[in-house]
Amino acid sequence: MDDSVRRHKYMLTEDEMPTTWYNVIPDLPSPPPPPLHPGRMDPVGPDDLTPLFPMDLILQEVSGERYIDIPGGVLDVYRQWRPSPLFRAHRLEKALGTPARIYYKYEGVSPAGSHKTNTSVPQAYYNKKEGTTRLTTETGAGQWGTALSFACALYGIDCEVWQVGASYDSKPYRRLMIEAFGGRVHRSPSDVTDVGRGFAADPKNWPGSLGIAISEAVEVAAKDPNTRYALGSVLNHVLLHQTIIGQEALLQMQMAGDTPTLIVGCTGGGSNFAGLSFPFLREKLAGRMDPRILAVEPASCPSLTRGVYAYDFGDTAGMTPLLKMHTLGHDFIPDPIHAGGLRYHGMAPLISHVYELGLMDAIAVPQTECFAAAVQFARTEGIVPAPEPTHALAAAIREALKAKETGEETVILTALCGHGHFDLAAYDAYLNGSMVDEEVSDARFAEALETLPQVVG
Amino acid sequence: MDDSVRRHKYMLTEDEMPTTWYNVIPDLPSPPPPPLHPGRMDPVGPDDLTPLFPMDLILQEVSGERYIDIPGGVLDVYRQWRPSPLFRAHRLEKALGTPARIYYKYEGVSPAGSHKTNTSVPQAYYNKKEGTTRLTTETGAGQWGTALSFACALYGIDCEVWQVGASYDSKPYRRLMIEAFGGRVHRSPSDVTDVGRGFAADPKNWPGSLGIAISEAVEVAAKDPNTRYALGSVLNHVLLHQTIIGQEALLQMQMAGDTPTLIVGCTGGGSNFAGLSFPFLREKLAGRMDPRILAVEPASCPSLTRGVYAYDFGDTAGMTPLLKMHTLGHDFIPDPIHAGGLRYHGMAPLISHVYELGLMDAIAVPQTECFAAAVQFARTEGIVPAPEPTHALAAAIREALKAKETGEETVILTALCGHGHFDLAAYDAYLNGSMVDEEVSDARFAEALETLPQVVG
Repeated sequence: MDDSVRRHKYMLTEDEMPTTWYNVIPDLPSPPPPPLHPGRMDPVGPDDLTPLFPMDLILQEVSGERYIDIPGGVLDVYRQWRPSPLFRAHRLEKALGTPARIYYKYEGVSPAGSHKTNTSVPQAYYNKKEGTTRLTTETGAGQWGTALSFACALYGIDCEVWQVGASYDSKPYRRLMIEAFGGRVHRSPSDVTDVGRGFAADPKNWPGSLGIAISEAVEVAAKDPNTRYALGSVLNHVLLHQTIIGQEALLQMQMAGDTPTLIVGCTGGGSNFAGLSFPFLREKLAGRMDPRILAVEPASCPSLTRGVYAYDFGDTAGMTPLLKMHTLGHDFIPDPIHAGGLRYHGMAPLISHVYELGLMDAIAVPQTECFAAAVQFARTEGIVPAPEPTHALAAAIREALKAKETGEETVILTALCGHGHFDLAAYDAYLNGSMVDEEVSDARFAEALETLPQVVG
Repeated sequence: MDDSVRRHKYMLTEDEMPTTWYNVIPDLPSPPPPPLHPGRMDPVGPDDLTPLFPMDLILQEVSGERYIDIPGGVLDVYRQWRPSPLFRAHRLEKALGTPARIYYKYEGVSPAGSHKTNTSVPQAYYNKKEGTTRLTTETGAGQWGTALSFACALYGIDCEVWQVGASYDSKPYRRLMIEAFGGRVHRSPSDVTDVGRGFAADPKNWPGSLGIAISEAVEVAAKDPNTRYALGSVLNHVLLHQTIIGQEALLQMQMAGDTPTLIVGCTGGGSNFAGLSFPFLREKLAGRMDPRILAVEPASCPSLTRGVYAYDFGDTAGMTPLLKMHTLGHDFIPDPIHAGGLRYHGMAPLISHVYELGLMDAIAVPQTECFAAAVQFARTEGIVPAPEPTHALAAAIREALKAKETGEETVILTALCGHGHFDLAAYDAYLNGSMVDEEVSDARFAEALETLPQVVG
């Protein structure tokens, strides 16, 4: 038994919490390509977006400012659970027998149990300021729906959530959590929207997808002037709000007296990954440190490693602006894997751009390897991770074992973006041996890419 | 929107964490009556307990020392999530429109999501030290089973858990959480023990009770010299380990510059309540503050407010020592309410003694009032509480509304001993209107008391 005094977590005080979000765009060698209007095929302007988003968020979406002030009202809410802890994984390191030092930034302490509240709170705040009385959204695993429901409860806004059918069926507690905070949940595809009824006509769409759920939520918001839409990932302003994670982690790594050589995060839409890594990317671009930045995606939905970089719709019905991103095609319906939050056909345009610039790497990992990592993590570190960040944990463990071979003192920093309390059916499947890794055929990827929109120029 | 800078949480550093547990016994005007041997009817000695507990815990059980050192190995594990936060409930206060200031000490940040790890870790530690290879236990809602399973994973001890049937059926995710940490779960009454098979013969016992589950776990431990038993509440050493909560809260209330006038906690076996309140009781006995100390129990299992103070068995089969406590009778099977952790027929002997000394008060609250409080709390404070601490929240809200009437600036401190992520079916029942308050008849209480053991003298 180890009786030594060692630090497990690095905590900042409320006073030390960053008061600005960090926008990486002005620090990049070139800006990302703009979103295009789906009809006109020219860059969208603020007026195109006002039916869906309040002006403050639209301005953040296109901002060239390096730092954007976090409003006092948002800071006040953040301070309930932020700054979030940075943990040193002493017991996992010991179990692996690695000389690597592993740190994880844990966002599961938030009201919704994930990083999603970092953006749901400002989104609800700005909507309230502009008089929005209802917000609609999609949710996959349910983390985002929970986060938005919580934020809407704080500001007295009605919240309506379309949850991907496969997750709705397999994670009933997620729906109940959204309802406990006061939100209303529809199984997507639903019968309350035109697009939902359209997709539901074909049984292949019954498990749903984030793309379909987005179409439903957008349709409802577009029809009602007092209703707006909130997106939980992908867009610049969402990634911006998440940068509080990495800014805190920078300060906490300084407290720990360590500099990461590898930053690893899971990617679905990309907001958690961007939130952790962009502040470190700033340091890398400025030559102050040189970490490898690694995105980890599920083998069954690998937009960065097997998609194409092209303009595509953000949703399945083709109602959103066209985004230049790594995409598997907006028609791609991923297998119903347990990491519901990573089942998105595209990657955030800003991350796609950073990837194209060669500033980061990406790999894809099959889900059984992720759950093996998750169980080892739970039994040593005591936190049962959500299925999404288990992808990053699996990659971190690969690297830690590599360090054991080479003897290198790799310093790994990863984002544990949420707990898995609502995902235990997935652990059950893994522990009882019924979880499998489905191979996705090249033909299936190729087929989904056939319907990419044609963009001239 | 409130843009002011206000503190939401009071955090201690790892260095500020208390390094001793506090034993209230030497500070009381008289010691509590000793446990009796169920056959001999005289006080049990250490030898009577060695089949079930390691010597370190037996010595703690009977200790007259005011402070007991927390071993370095236990401190090292505690430091992962401790010191736990003390929150000021600004938003709840505003929603209630009360001049009362409400603070809550939150134990849901622990690996098991409740205060139970404060004792599961030292119990597993001392058992490991003495060579125990397997620990058995009971669990109601599942919080304690999860906590012990986690602690056993750390020390490489096998963990076997008998879960009360009603909870096993209604909270499948709790079982999965125990299994994720590596523990093995039996539905109680089970067919793997003699007592389990005996109770299962009568259908009225099928929902199970903590008393029955304890009998099963004790039977298995008593038969195997390498197996010992671990209890999650009731006994002195368990209450002792929980006093880290109140000791931290004392320091945190000092940080907040406030002194509680009311300390309120829920009581099942009593460990959470004792953990928060005993360090404040020390201050009260020394004349340094004068808070009212209030226990809140469920109306369907009200051992303090409707039980008798008498010697009774800790389990249903009558295998444990006799404990002098407030009891509803070891044959009492409480209704299957949602606060499974409070469904115990007895109250910790030490709390029972403090209650008899007139140093604290107790009330019973029906579960629908608790869930009304819980939903209001969730939608303002962002934490979905476990059903157990909603009893304390309901009482805290009563007092805060009373303060609104009188204008008094009551300072309320309560223990939010765990989150309700595995209890959302209960929230569903409340929100859809199917939750009811069952009235327990006087006759049913009287009947259960008929089988109290006869103690001479």
